[in-house]
Amino acid sequence: MDRDASVGDLGEDGLVAAVLSRLPPMPASVLVGAGDDAAVLARLDGSVVVSTDTVVQGEDFDLAWSTGRDVGVKVSAQNLADLAAMGARPVALVVSLAAPAELPASWAGELTDGLADECARGGAALVGGDVSQAPVVVVTGTALGVLPAATPAVLRSGARVGDVVALAGAVGRSAAGLDLLRSGRRRDDPDPVLARLIEDHLGPRPPYPAGEAGARAGASAMIDTSDGLVRDARRLGEASGVLLDLDAVALAPSPDLAHAAERLGDADPGIWVLSGGEDHALLATFPPDTTPPEGFRVVGRVVPAGAEGGGGVLVDHLPAPADGGWRHFRHR
Amino acid sequence: MDRDASVGDLGEDGLVAAVLSRLPPMPASVLVGAGDDAAVLARLDGSVVVSTDTVVQGEDFDLAWSTGRDVGVKVSAQNLADLAAMGARPVALVVSLAAPAELPASWAGELTDGLADECARGGAALVGGDVSQAPVVVVTGTALGVLPAATPAVLRSGARVGDVVALAGAVGRSAAGLDLLRSGRRRDDPDPVLARLIEDHLGPRPPYPAGEAGARAGASAMIDTSDGLVRDARRLGEASGVLLDLDAVALAPSPDLAHAAERLGDADPGIWVLSGGEDHALLATFPPDTTPPEGFRVVGRVVPAGAEGGGGVLVDHLPAPADGGWRHFRHR
Repeated sequence: MDRDASVGDLGEDGLVAAVLSRLPPMPASVLVGAGDDAAVLARLDGSVVVSTDTVVQGEDFDLAWSTGRDVGVKVSAQNLADLAAMGARPVALVVSLAAPAELPASWAGELTDGLADECARGGAALVGGDVSQAPVVVVTGTALGVLPAATPAVLRSGARVGDVVALAGAVGRSAAGLDLLRSGRRRDDPDPVLARLIEDHLGPRPPYPAGEAGARAGASAMIDTSDGLVRDARRLGEASGVLLDLDAVALAPSPDLAHAAERLGDADPGIWVLSGGEDHALLATFPPDTTPPEGFRVVGRVVPAGAEGGGGVLVDHLPAPADGGWRHFRHR
Repeated sequence: MDRDASVGDLGEDGLVAAVLSRLPPMPASVLVGAGDDAAVLARLDGSVVVSTDTVVQGEDFDLAWSTGRDVGVKVSAQNLADLAAMGARPVALVVSLAAPAELPASWAGELTDGLADECARGGAALVGGDVSQAPVVVVTGTALGVLPAATPAVLRSGARVGDVVALAGAVGRSAAGLDLLRSGRRRDDPDPVLARLIEDHLGPRPPYPAGEAGARAGASAMIDTSDGLVRDARRLGEASGVLLDLDAVALAPSPDLAHAAERLGDADPGIWVLSGGEDHALLATFPPDTTPPEGFRVVGRVVPAGAEGGGGVLVDHLPAPADGGWRHFRHR
């Protein structure tokens, strides 16, 4: 691909051809890959799980901080994490890119590489897509997965009083990385801990296998922490009509977060853990007679909803702050 | 839903709740509908077909002309038509809405209605989605379908010399409707022919069952005319390494198109037929010993590529204009 060309220079057909040339070989289970009206996958041996998620330039990423590859990793990660949160195994991803004509074609190529690489990490194939023109870059992924036979989907609504609350993956690292970027630090920061936190913000790497492992181990409910631990725990608690009582000691900030907060001066690493979004960790509940599988650690307990009912989230037996977590349409 | 509220007033969770309340009941084959991390469909009895397509405010629709319902119909139609063009039966659609905070929440509700109605017409369920903030409205649909067992996918690349070229659905009506809108006419035009053409632009209604019927009848290649008859016929011809020789008499503009061109004065209805996009008719080729099924009419013949090879499209044995049809990134 000509590194200096824009997507407008290539035109729609040229852009599609350039992107298709970057795709890795399709696995045999992909009967028809990208380039026709639709992709075709061999019959899936189980229920089909589907999720869609969008990132928008200026809202979810900044072209000054994120490469095309970062955005590709991010789109794949947040879509595949939604599948994992149902207990499913990722199978395929399709993507739609809407972009200004001025966007460098090389950016679109890097986006494709990031999408394909993170798909490969999650066990999925990047099988198709669509390109359109828009005033800002908008990338929508849609992921397909399969639930192994005899393993029901793990919903948000299945948590029961007495269950343990467990977490797979780190929380707070993405928010710390974002605050580091905002403070002027970059991914080439000489402090390797800070550089790693910035990388974890730019390209989250969810613990996909923990989703299927959690389902097989009998998880009663599961969600991915896309909008922040407290906000997503509240969603799970409300859907289940229970309270998730999180244990602040189990959720104490890691040394990496404490180090970053110290370097920044005015940051609270506990807020990153409780309210930071985009880590795509998996928060699950397990019946008391089951053992959370490898990768999960216990971070709380399910307790009855209060007299008013409804369900939600507590931290150390006290109501969690209401506005924790990322919200679209909050900052207009 | 409060008719005066904006999506920003509702906030992300409020908007999602408002949209979910508009969805029709899910069929039994949808094990988990919208509202969890992902939707879950019962095992599909055949290969799984997936396609994604995006519409952008100002590119693909104009908020002054299109209601939310129109845009919903359009997004469903163009996605489901891609499935039909593979010979598949539509099963499900997920949708992502990115929109400014100022967008009326009622528009998002109407969008949901349009998506769900056209999905129902195509036999699919609207099973999930995602909302984000963006400077303009961007709606991405992703459709899932199933190929009946023993019916292979119909690709663009299967046309062979001697096949007949056949078309299901009308072409040129969407382009005529767009030119009528640009001339200042509206959907409430007192001339019912013009009003119907405008409706066909705002909400295309593809002939979905013809896709599966064409596949069962042995179609050798198929594509939907999303970008215009000549442009999509060229894609099919190039993918197959043949020329599609279209018959201008068989493609003569209908009386409706002739009437609209006369009213507009300076329009050429033949251009609408050959180059107008967004009708989502189905263009297929059939071996000479097969009979195109009901709904298809013969509009040409497959002939050998010229000495230079490559394939493409002719009209009455002569090369078709190279720039016919809709192209993203053309008008920057």
